[in-house]
Amino acid sequence: IFNVTWDAVAAEKGGYEHFMLKEIHEQPKAVRDTLSGRIAEDGSAVTLGELDLSEEVVQSIDRIHIVACGTSYHAGLVGKVAIETLARIPVDVEIASEYRYRNPIVTDRTLILVISQSGETADTLAALRNAKMAGNRVMAITNVVGSSAAREADHVLVTWAGPEISVASTKAYTTQLIALYLFATYLGQIKGTLASDERAKLLNALLDLPLKIDEVLKTAPAIETIARDFSSWDDAFFLGRGLDFAVALEGALKYKEISYIHAEAYPAGELKHGTLALITEDVPVIALVTQDELYEKTVSNIKEVKARDAHVLALAWVGDEEIGKSVDRVLYVPRTLPFLAPVLLVAPLQLLAYYASVARGNDVDKPRNLAKSVTVE
Amino acid sequence: IFNVTWDAVAAEKGGYEHFMLKEIHEQPKAVRDTLSGRIAEDGSAVTLGELDLSEEVVQSIDRIHIVACGTSYHAGLVGKVAIETLARIPVDVEIASEYRYRNPIVTDRTLILVISQSGETADTLAALRNAKMAGNRVMAITNVVGSSAAREADHVLVTWAGPEISVASTKAYTTQLIALYLFATYLGQIKGTLASDERAKLLNALLDLPLKIDEVLKTAPAIETIARDFSSWDDAFFLGRGLDFAVALEGALKYKEISYIHAEAYPAGELKHGTLALITEDVPVIALVTQDELYEKTVSNIKEVKARDAHVLALAWVGDEEIGKSVDRVLYVPRTLPFLAPVLLVAPLQLLAYYASVARGNDVDKPRNLAKSVTVE
Repeated sequence: IFNVTWDAVAAEKGGYEHFMLKEIHEQPKAVRDTLSGRIAEDGSAVTLGELDLSEEVVQSIDRIHIVACGTSYHAGLVGKVAIETLARIPVDVEIASEYRYRNPIVTDRTLILVISQSGETADTLAALRNAKMAGNRVMAITNVVGSSAAREADHVLVTWAGPEISVASTKAYTTQLIALYLFATYLGQIKGTLASDERAKLLNALLDLPLKIDEVLKTAPAIETIARDFSSWDDAFFLGRGLDFAVALEGALKYKEISYIHAEAYPAGELKHGTLALITEDVPVIALVTQDELYEKTVSNIKEVKARDAHVLALAWVGDEEIGKSVDRVLYVPRTLPFLAPVLLVAPLQLLAYYASVARGNDVDKPRNLAKSVTVE
Repeated sequence: IFNVTWDAVAAEKGGYEHFMLKEIHEQPKAVRDTLSGRIAEDGSAVTLGELDLSEEVVQSIDRIHIVACGTSYHAGLVGKVAIETLARIPVDVEIASEYRYRNPIVTDRTLILVISQSGETADTLAALRNAKMAGNRVMAITNVVGSSAAREADHVLVTWAGPEISVASTKAYTTQLIALYLFATYLGQIKGTLASDERAKLLNALLDLPLKIDEVLKTAPAIETIARDFSSWDDAFFLGRGLDFAVALEGALKYKEISYIHAEAYPAGELKHGTLALITEDVPVIALVTQDELYEKTVSNIKEVKARDAHVLALAWVGDEEIGKSVDRVLYVPRTLPFLAPVLLVAPLQLLAYYASVARGNDVDKPRNLAKSVTVE
């Protein structure tokens, strides 16, 4: 295992009990830094000259394969929705350790987009190298400027999260989301699939996110109380539809890797196809309900788990009084475009995992069995 | 909820304690019936005239969206590999309750392939109807000839599993796999992407499967013993790579829906990205190792979970003595092409779930909270 040595000063915990908590709180700044210099001053367009991706090349791309592991893979799932919605280019999101060993259908119009915080993740790098060897175009989203992924990819978009020390990734994920939203907008801008007023609205909403994450972080004490209660249960289910489901996957991963509680995320509509059998009064369910057009359907799934006496925590928009009638507790996040909800939803989920881990007396920053960068296969 | 009333005679348990056990044992016949009349007498070609899919249409298809729920979705994941390998047409596999609410990128060259045992699954039918309304070409794989899916799709491939009474689907899945292999071969045959000697070899191997499933079913007593031991643990992980992972997903679903044990499937290479933190001596791990080219990598992942004292059961090919050195127990299945392994792997996994459920005193055929056909959303 290869250990990155960060600058000792940057590595200080800055008054926080754990690196993870510090890094969760650094997210407003990390998002601001990742947006910085990439949106035109009048807020009308994305400027990603650094990508070195010509208009002609963008026009030629007819498919994108996003390849990543773990948390970066979950960011990729949001990226798929972002790119397909804004640029109408079909996207496949693939787990690197699976992708590298199969024989994917790739043409000269396919862009391979790898995502890796460290830029050294073994399976992701192998996929990158296979693609390069086959003569394909590769782009990397990474947090480490001098990493192998950054050096070997044809196009690089850096996330400016700063050093991430905690094994459980937090700010890296959030900045990967920002990079993906920017990239998707950039593609849509060039392809003309995104009206300029829609684009301005979206970019404006992106610029507002750091302050809104700040607001979300202020709910930490309430989350700590909930986490302490939840930490006595050995299982947990995270539910959502659409983008809420993509974030639910990341919430469940965070929860399991540091609290050692068997958490699993499910698309809310799939519950009835088997997993509902596991729902009892001893199972906490975390339901994400920010996707307006899926609201009724998700609430109907919540009622199903409530009917089996599950204890339900909802994450919903500030102002959604209605949801309180169907669940046991609600955590509110400030409104943004539903399309950008993942950026605001993930912080409460990270805090939930963090406080559950603390309540269980675990080594938060170094969970058992895990390494920061998975540089072995 | 809509209940299908089957012919009382067909519905008898035929000497088995539960419908599920009966249906597991009907799989050799179900597979034989689903193959019957669909392979030329000299074993050289697939004949699917019933599909009514012209050569011209097949040549025009440049993407397939497989849409399904639950167990049928898992069959679809195997179908993706089959079609991409044999016909080199890119396939997306989508959960119906997610797919129907997003705005997927579909062209007149996209085939929408829905899979539903009952042909009445609400979310799958809605996806079918959305696609029809948008003027897209829809094909259905279903077990019920007169079902809504069969009546409304442009092209239909029937699985001849016979009535399935147990809520937990078994023979329907296996025959869906067969239908998908036949369809993939048919596409490859028309597109010329599958050499005729390879095709003959594959069809031959398909025809051999019923006898091999019979052999697998003879190991039921050994599986019963293992299941009884495993049933005292509240969690389980199912691991595999490639096609082994696709079957692992179905094994985990079966396990959780009738034993109420929190089982989860993972691509073996993803464990290190978080879930390894959950592995302790109290966690049984079921590892599938039939994909020859991924063998070493999977064994290396098995060693990681063994290092954390997990109790590991491997499913491997008859003759693989080596695997016994790395795991606690082995269940052997007779060799077939690794490409067809899912058809032989699923029966032991179904039996494992069945006997774990019996050991826990659950109502096997009617697991709590679940209905046979999910005709509500």
